[in-house]
Amino acid sequence: MNDTIEVTEAEVTALYEKIKRDAESGGYILNPDMSFTLPLIRGLAVNMKRYGYIACPCRLASGVRGEDKDMICPCDYRDPDLAQYGACFCALYVSQEVADGTKKVKPLPDRREREKAKSPAQNKVHEKLSHPVWRCRVCGYLAARDEPPAVCPICKVSKERFELFLS
Amino acid sequence: MNDTIEVTEAEVTALYEKIKRDAESGGYILNPDMSFTLPLIRGLAVNMKRYGYIACPCRLASGVRGEDKDMICPCDYRDPDLAQYGACFCALYVSQEVADGTKKVKPLPDRREREKAKSPAQNKVHEKLSHPVWRCRVCGYLAARDEPPAVCPICKVSKERFELFLS
Amino acid sequence: MNDTIEVTEAEVTALYEKIKRDAESGGYILNPDMSFTLPLIRGLAVNMKRYGYIACPCRLASGVRGEDKDMICPCDYRDPDLAQYGACFCALYVSQEVADGTKKVKPLPDRREREKAKSPAQNKVHEKLSHPVWRCRVCGYLAARDEPPAVCPICKVSKERFELFLS
Repeated sequence: MNDTIEVTEAEVTALYEKIKRDAESGGYILNPDMSFTLPLIRGLAVNMKRYGYIACPCRLASGVRGEDKDMICPCDYRDPDLAQYGACFCALYVSQEVADGTKKVKPLPDRREREKAKSPAQNKVHEKLSHPVWRCRVCGYLAARDEPPAVCPICKVSKERFELFLS
Repeated sequence: MNDTIEVTEAEVTALYEKIKRDAESGGYILNPDMSFTLPLIRGLAVNMKRYGYIACPCRLASGVRGEDKDMICPCDYRDPDLAQYGACFCALYVSQEVADGTKKVKPLPDRREREKAKSPAQNKVHEKLSHPVWRCRVCGYLAARDEPPAVCPICKVSKERFELFLS
Repeated sequence: MNDTIEVTEAEVTALYEKIKRDAESGGYILNPDMSFTLPLIRGLAVNMKRYGYIACPCRLASGVRGEDKDMICPCDYRDPDLAQYGACFCALYVSQEVADGTKKVKPLPDRREREKAKSPAQNKVHEKLSHPVWRCRVCGYLAARDEPPAVCPICKVSKERFELFLS
């Protein structure tokens, strides 16, 4: 591991723009506080050079892609954390309320640690499906997740417009 | 209720641009007749100020978000109306044929009234699923709706490229 | 059939830009070698004028839309060919590795011919579902296809982040 990995401003800016574009096209919101967000993006850019993938800058990466797969940004825990806390573990992604300043982000526990501590039986909540399937009543979009997305990535209506489709 | 709610041209334009962007990213088309469309957008902007959500400007809102949820634009009835009539109830959203001028929009009945008049048993057409699931043969996108979308929101192929996947 | 169908540079450019935009919004990549790609786009533009739809320029079209439906670009075979060979039959769409130049495209067999030669029984691999359903672990996106997409069209994470959801 090399502790002196350097990234240029141009690299950080390019990565920021890619991540922001991908976020917005799916209805996700990056933390608008740039003094907070840019250091996180810089951490991602450093991890890209160090490991070859954008490992979460707020967790300890193993450096083995297969072991870190669930914490490549956006991590597998982003969406449940957004639903429960209004922010991902790093607070790089935030809810509309947090972005608007009407809700404050508090430090949150690492869902990854909790998931790993669970026995397989606990992980299997549903008899047949690993996650319930939600349906957007407007466009019919289906997503298999614990809760509906904050915004339908297809037609951009809000979470309240989803209904349980399969469980 | 305040009958003198004022919205500025800038507010109407900003809302129009957001709605148009969201429509296009999902493969939907706004009515290209701006002399028709802009007053509808203005109605939505007024409703945003009045109620806090963009209630359909062509229906009577209760002002209670939970009761009006299905008629926040785009309403739950847009897509079946587009499939059947080539336009939503307001004709804010139109099919490609209507946008091209090769098909005329006629006044359409309010699907919302018909849905509300149905008994729960009539609403439950399918034994297990509330809607059939359609699959895009090109990209595998799944949508649960009475008919496939006019355009696949992911890969933009047309309705004919969908097949019934589950029902 | 008219062998002297003419298309203008402006028509080719407009079609190229539409196809590129649609590709990128879904996480697909057009062949970056413009000297190779533009003639294919020109072929599509000619077919648009000849048939009224963008029949694949590398296959023989019947001219009957219903019979050619599966080979309107993007064809039904693009995604399995991208997964297996890193390119579609024409090499208009390519994988990231091919786009980066780290993998070479070789001539590939026409999956369409092979599919047509199959008996219906061979086509029905799964007892109940025609295709397995893959779930993006990050955003819950579901796609019914033989393999997960190279990139999640919603949140842009890579194929390794998908898990089997239903089969």
